[in-house]
Amino acid sequence: SAKFSFSDHSHRRFNPLTGSWVLCSPHRAKRPWLGQVEEAANNQRPEYDPKCYLCPGNKRAAGTQNDNYTSTYVFTNDYAAVHSNQPECSTAALEQVTGSRLPNELFRVESTCGQCKVVCFSPRHDLTLPELSIDQISQVVSTWQDIFCELSADPNIGYIQIFENKGAMMGCSNPHPHGQVWAMSDVPSEPAAEIASFKAFRQKHAASDSHACLLCSYVYAEGANTASESANRVLLQNETFMVVVPFWAVWPFETMILAKSHIPHIGELSQLQIQHLAEAMQALTIRYDNIFQCSFPYSMGLHQSPTANHVDAGCCHLHLHFYPPLLRNSTVRKFLVGFEMMAEPQRDLTAEQAAARLRSIESIHYKHRAH
Amino acid sequence: SAKFSFSDHSHRRFNPLTGSWVLCSPHRAKRPWLGQVEEAANNQRPEYDPKCYLCPGNKRAAGTQNDNYTSTYVFTNDYAAVHSNQPECSTAALEQVTGSRLPNELFRVESTCGQCKVVCFSPRHDLTLPELSIDQISQVVSTWQDIFCELSADPNIGYIQIFENKGAMMGCSNPHPHGQVWAMSDVPSEPAAEIASFKAFRQKHAASDSHACLLCSYVYAEGANTASESANRVLLQNETFMVVVPFWAVWPFETMILAKSHIPHIGELSQLQIQHLAEAMQALTIRYDNIFQCSFPYSMGLHQSPTANHVDAGCCHLHLHFYPPLLRNSTVRKFLVGFEMMAEPQRDLTAEQAAARLRSIESIHYKHRAH
Ligand SMILES: O=P(O)(O)O[C@H]1O[C@H](CO)[C@@H](O)[C@H](O)[C@H]1O
Ligand SMILES: O=P(O)(O)O[C@H]1O[C@H](CO)[C@@H](O)[C@H](O)[C@H]1O
Repeated sequence: SAKFSFSDHSHRRFNPLTGSWVLCSPHRAKRPWLGQVEEAANNQRPEYDPKCYLCPGNKRAAGTQNDNYTSTYVFTNDYAAVHSNQPECSTAALEQVTGSRLPNELFRVESTCGQCKVVCFSPRHDLTLPELSIDQISQVVSTWQDIFCELSADPNIGYIQIFENKGAMMGCSNPHPHGQVWAMSDVPSEPAAEIASFKAFRQKHAASDSHACLLCSYVYAEGANTASESANRVLLQNETFMVVVPFWAVWPFETMILAKSHIPHIGELSQLQIQHLAEAMQALTIRYDNIFQCSFPYSMGLHQSPTANHVDAGCCHLHLHFYPPLLRNSTVRKFLVGFEMMAEPQRDLTAEQAAARLRSIESIHYKHRAH
Repeated sequence: SAKFSFSDHSHRRFNPLTGSWVLCSPHRAKRPWLGQVEEAANNQRPEYDPKCYLCPGNKRAAGTQNDNYTSTYVFTNDYAAVHSNQPECSTAALEQVTGSRLPNELFRVESTCGQCKVVCFSPRHDLTLPELSIDQISQVVSTWQDIFCELSADPNIGYIQIFENKGAMMGCSNPHPHGQVWAMSDVPSEPAAEIASFKAFRQKHAASDSHACLLCSYVYAEGANTASESANRVLLQNETFMVVVPFWAVWPFETMILAKSHIPHIGELSQLQIQHLAEAMQALTIRYDNIFQCSFPYSMGLHQSPTANHVDAGCCHLHLHFYPPLLRNSTVRKFLVGFEMMAEPQRDLTAEQAAARLRSIESIHYKHRAH
C-alpha cells in the first residue's frame, strides 16, 4: 500500500509563534493556471529620477524638499497612519460612532497615537537591497537601530514596527529603495500574538530552564536538522544569524532571519552583529532575485521586544520575516484569497521543497554575473 | 481646541469574532498613489467559450467532460487541496520532516483529509452573481445547502467552507461564474477562532441569558443604530438577513450578511429564507458593481457551525463575509502588505464612511439601466 509522504499528501502545520495552522497541499502546484499574470519587475530605472519624491534634492508630494543625502535618509511620513498629537477621544465622539454611551464589548474602540517614518536605503533610484554593498546594508541596519533607540525613549511609544514593501506587486507606492517605521503606543495584533506565545513558552518551561525561549529552542532544533536533507530548512547562517524557511511557512518562499542567541531587539546589536545581519539580508535577497531572475517582490519586517517602558519589554527574540508572493515564475503569484481568508492559509509546496530550491540558487546576483 | 473625530483621527477597533484589532487612519486616503494600477474588470465575455473548462459540455484540464448543464453544476475539484483518501501518516514520515522521532511542540504537524468541490453558478460564461436573477441565485444557495447536508453526514468531515473568489485580482483562475467548497476533517483556523469567541460570549452571558449569542447581540445593536446617521452601518435588510459594514471592517468595502435570528448553518434555511439570502446577495453585489461601474472583485465565504458529528456542532451563527480589495477606483486596490502583514490590518476610511457610500449607490445594475 502507498506510504504517506509529506511532499505528496495533504497536512497541516502549526505556527507556534502566532498559534495558527497552515494547510499544505504539495500536489496542488500541478494545476493549470489561467488566472492573473502580472508584469515582471525588470527594474530598469535611472540612477536619479527628477519626478521621484524620494530622490535626493527633490520635492515630495506634500511640498517638503529632500536633503541632498548620500547614504540613508530618514523623514517623517507625509501621510502618516498615526500621529504623535491628536485630540483626546471624548464620550460624545464615542457615542456618535458606536451608537451608545455605554461601553459595549462588541464595539470596542480606542484612540491611538504614534509616529511614521520613511527610511530611504540609498540615494540611488535604480538599486534595491540585494544590489547594495554589505557596508550600505549595514548603514540601513544602523539607521534602524538609531530610530529604534530614539523612539524607545519616548514614553508614548510601545512598539516599533520596521518594515519594507518591495515591488509594485506588494503595494509599494514608489520604486526608490525604501522602508518604513510605524511606531505605535500599543503593541499591534501580530507581535502581540507572538509575545503571548513567547510568554506561554517561557512559563511552561520555567521549572526546567529559567531562560527558556521559543525561538532559542527553534534555532537550536533547526541547526540540528541540517544533517538530514529531508528536514533541512536552513538556507545559510553566520556567527550571529540563521536564515531558515520556517516549518510553518505560508508564502511559497517565505523565510525568517533569526538571531542565533537571545537578542531581544535591534538596539542590542554590536557593530559586528549589524554587519552579520547585513550579510544575511544580502545573501537571502540575492537568492530571491535569482530564483526567477527578476526583482523579487516581498514584504519584510522585524519583530522584536516592545519598548523599554512597556510591560512586555524584553519579551521577544529578534527576528525578521520575509513574505514574498511569487510562486510559479516572475509573473504568477500565490493568491491568499477565498479559502485562505475565510478558513486557513494554504500552500502548494512544502517548506522543505522551498528550502532545497533556495539552497540550490546561485549566490551571486544575476545582474552582476560575468556573461 | 480641536475635537476628536472618528472620521479624521487614528483609532483602533476590535473584532470580537476573531479577537484581533484593526488600525483605522481615515485621513490616509488623501495620499497620492504612484503604485500598481491593475486592469479594470470589464467583463466582456461570450455566453459560451469553447476553451473554458467550466462551460457546459467542455473538457476540463484533467480530461473529464462537463455535463450539458442548464442550472448550477457541481463536480469534484480536479486539483483538490484535500482528498478523502490518503495513506496514514507514519512515525517514520514524521521523523523525516521534523528531524526527530519525538513529538516537539515547535514541529506540530498532522495529516488532513477532506473533499473539494467546484460549484458552477450558471451555464452562462459571461454572467456573474449580481447579473443572475433571484431564482438563479436561490438555485446557487440551494446547491450549497444540498452539498452542506450531504457532506455533514460524512463522519470524516468536521467543517465545510463554502467560498467564491471573484475576479482575476482575487486569484480567480477562471472567469466562468463559480465558487468552491472545501470540506475538511478539522475546523480551519479562522472559523475555529470565531467558534472560540462564540463560546466565550455564551459562557460570559449564560447567567443572565441562556441563549446569548455574539452575533444575535450584534444584529440587535446594529439594527438599533440605524436611527443615527453617524453610527448606521446597515446597508439593507429583509425579513431573514441584514447586510452591514461591520464596525471592525478591514477591507475598504468589506461587508457581512448576517442571519437576523439564530440560524446555526445553511442546512436550516427554509425555501423562503433561501430566497431572502439570494435577495440580500443580489442587492449587495449589484451595489458593489455600481461603485466603480466594473465587475467588483471580492472573496466571499460562509461561516457557520461545524458538522453534526463535531464536538462544536451548533456553535455558530450563520453569516457571510465579503472581502473586496478595491479602494480608489476600478484599477487601484488596497494592499494589505508590510504593516498589515507584520503588525495589524490598516484601513483608510471608516466603516461608517463605507456604509454611507454603499447606501448612496443605485440599486439597479449599471449594465441593466436604461440609457
Ligand atoms: O482554486 P483556484 O481558483 O485555482 O485558486 C484560487 O483559490 C484558492 C483557494 O482560495 C487559492 O489557494 C489559490 O491561491 C487561488 O488562486
Ligand atoms: O505607505 P505606502 O507605501 O504608501 O503604502 C503601502 O504600505 C502601507 C503599509 O503596509 C499599506 O497600508 C498600503 O496599503 C500600501 O500601499
